Amino acid sequence: MEEANNNTESPYISSILPGWFSEISPLWPGEAHSLKVEKILFQGKSDYQNVMVFQSSTYGKVLSLDGVIQLTERDECAYQEMITHLPLCSIPNPRKVLVIGGGDGGVLREVSRHSSVEQIDICEIDKMVIDVSKQFFPNVAIGYEDPRVKLHVGDGVAFLKNVPEGTYDAVIVDSSDPIGPAQELFEKPFFESVARALRRGGVVCTQAESIWLHMHIIEDIVANCRQIFKGSVNYAWTTVPTYPSGVIGFMVCSTEGPAVDFKNPINPIDVDDSHTKTRGPLKFYNSEIHSASFCLPSFAKRVIESKGK
Amino acid sequence: MEEANNNTESPYISSILPGWFSEISPLWPGEAHSLKVEKILFQGKSDYQNVMVFQSSTYGKVLSLDGVIQLTERDECAYQEMITHLPLCSIPNPRKVLVIGGGDGGVLREVSRHSSVEQIDICEIDKMVIDVSKQFFPNVAIGYEDPRVKLHVGDGVAFLKNVPEGTYDAVIVDSSDPIGPAQELFEKPFFESVARALRRGGVVCTQAESIWLHMHIIEDIVANCRQIFKGSVNYAWTTVPTYPSGVIGFMVCSTEGPAVDFKNPINPIDVDDSHTKTRGPLKFYNSEIHSASFCLPSFAKRVIESKGK
Repeated sequence: MEEANNNTESPYISSILPGWFSEISPLWPGEAHSLKVEKILFQGKSDYQNVMVFQSSTYGKVLSLDGVIQLTERDECAYQEMITHLPLCSIPNPRKVLVIGGGDGGVLREVSRHSSVEQIDICEIDKMVIDVSKQFFPNVAIGYEDPRVKLHVGDGVAFLKNVPEGTYDAVIVDSSDPIGPAQELFEKPFFESVARALRRGGVVCTQAESIWLHMHIIEDIVANCRQIFKGSVNYAWTTVPTYPSGVIGFMVCSTEGPAVDFKNPINPIDVDDSHTKTRGPLKFYNSEIHSASFCLPSFAKRVIESKGK
Repeated sequence: MEEANNNTESPYISSILPGWFSEISPLWPGEAHSLKVEKILFQGKSDYQNVMVFQSSTYGKVLSLDGVIQLTERDECAYQEMITHLPLCSIPNPRKVLVIGGGDGGVLREVSRHSSVEQIDICEIDKMVIDVSKQFFPNVAIGYEDPRVKLHVGDGVAFLKNVPEGTYDAVIVDSSDPIGPAQELFEKPFFESVARALRRGGVVCTQAESIWLHMHIIEDIVANCRQIFKGSVNYAWTTVPTYPSGVIGFMVCSTEGPAVDFKNPINPIDVDDSHTKTRGPLKFYNSEIHSASFCLPSFAKRVIESKGK
């Protein structure tokens, strides 16, 4: 790892507005969100992607991969808490949890709030993301400190193929966008592997893009999931200001077996606050916003509810 | 009104990135959302503000006031439908409605979906906003075509002072940010005038900024409203991609009198679809998202629920 010494080296800085980081991508053409940069703290090229950390003026430290913001200190709570507690608060006593991606450790931090959990496996493909998070985002990477966590550096698709059938109560897929190393995590064979790795009535929650920008991607994911997950298939969404269009969605599904009613969480984490001693209070998630996150705007509801039925 | 002939005249274009509109303001320091500009369609300076309309690459036509996006054709549905139907679907048979601001006509379009409404007054301070909307946003300004609408061009604060006590069932305050001509619409004397103009058990819905960016402003509004509106006082929010941080909130309050349970709408507009013949189907609002919009992230809930109690 090497640290950057000035603000002019990155293609993501100089190409737009001097002193600002601008997020431009074919996944959200014609718009760009920009953050003012105080200092670039790290730039590196891993085997998979460009990794950058900078100190922003108003969103704390920021991690970007291939020029796309993955997290900021100011709003990471929304994403990490929702992608984790939506599945884990929907089933009784989750014991074995697998995280695919999520190398920054934030999902691990949230999983570790659940005292019923005995085993937390994580499979992240890019070691540089892990190292950078431990160096610059200690309040996120704190998730790695839990002794229940077992880290596997490697390809999530390959990892899942070797998992014995029915191993996990929950799988959380914390991926980047479907351009780059995460592309396979949005495809049907991957979802089939996830379903195989889950016990009967097990749950999965995957990052599933924006209802404002990516309905065509979401349509495909929903159609695939309806074929593969024979319990229930749902789409939830939440607000994350530094993600394009200000929202991010999740596919939340269960396999055949004991029914899971995702909209009415039966394992509420916000009533038992023992986890707050080591992890701090929840900043974003609560049981009401859990249920509310499944309520969709009409334009999205029409597409998602009709798809694959 | 004069139309612009090229893309280089506006301070909101040339100051940042050639060919892009960037929204920079002390209300959201250190960040900027940018839209790619195809063509500037209008620029003018009214008595109150700079008015600009441009064709964007991916969000349709865009209206900005003093460099701040007020609406885009792509996402205006979320704001207009929520600020209107949150109050009007919460009371039985609304008859008299007042709109303060909202010169583009979008709130009028939504109010006019309610067949119980007999009178729709609107008081907009800036005639240029009305004229520009009628010229460039016919699907928004269509609200003016309803014969129940009576337009008053003038200052909303002064207008309210002359309204007989107890006149309206509902008041909707569709204002810009509290810097510029809308500043008074966020202050206590204005809320007192609104309460006076409402019947007993009447309702108000006002634009109330972003939970991610403006909790200090929201705290003050909530504290003021708890003193003035003796029925109920609530905060709701929704997603609007082209507003800073991607969300916008609303103060939704009722006066003393018949109780209003805003979280459980009793006057659902989405079951009777006669209004869709002239206005088209609702794109965003439905009864589930109405109720869900009152569920707050924990960080906002803690502040809002404690304030002024």
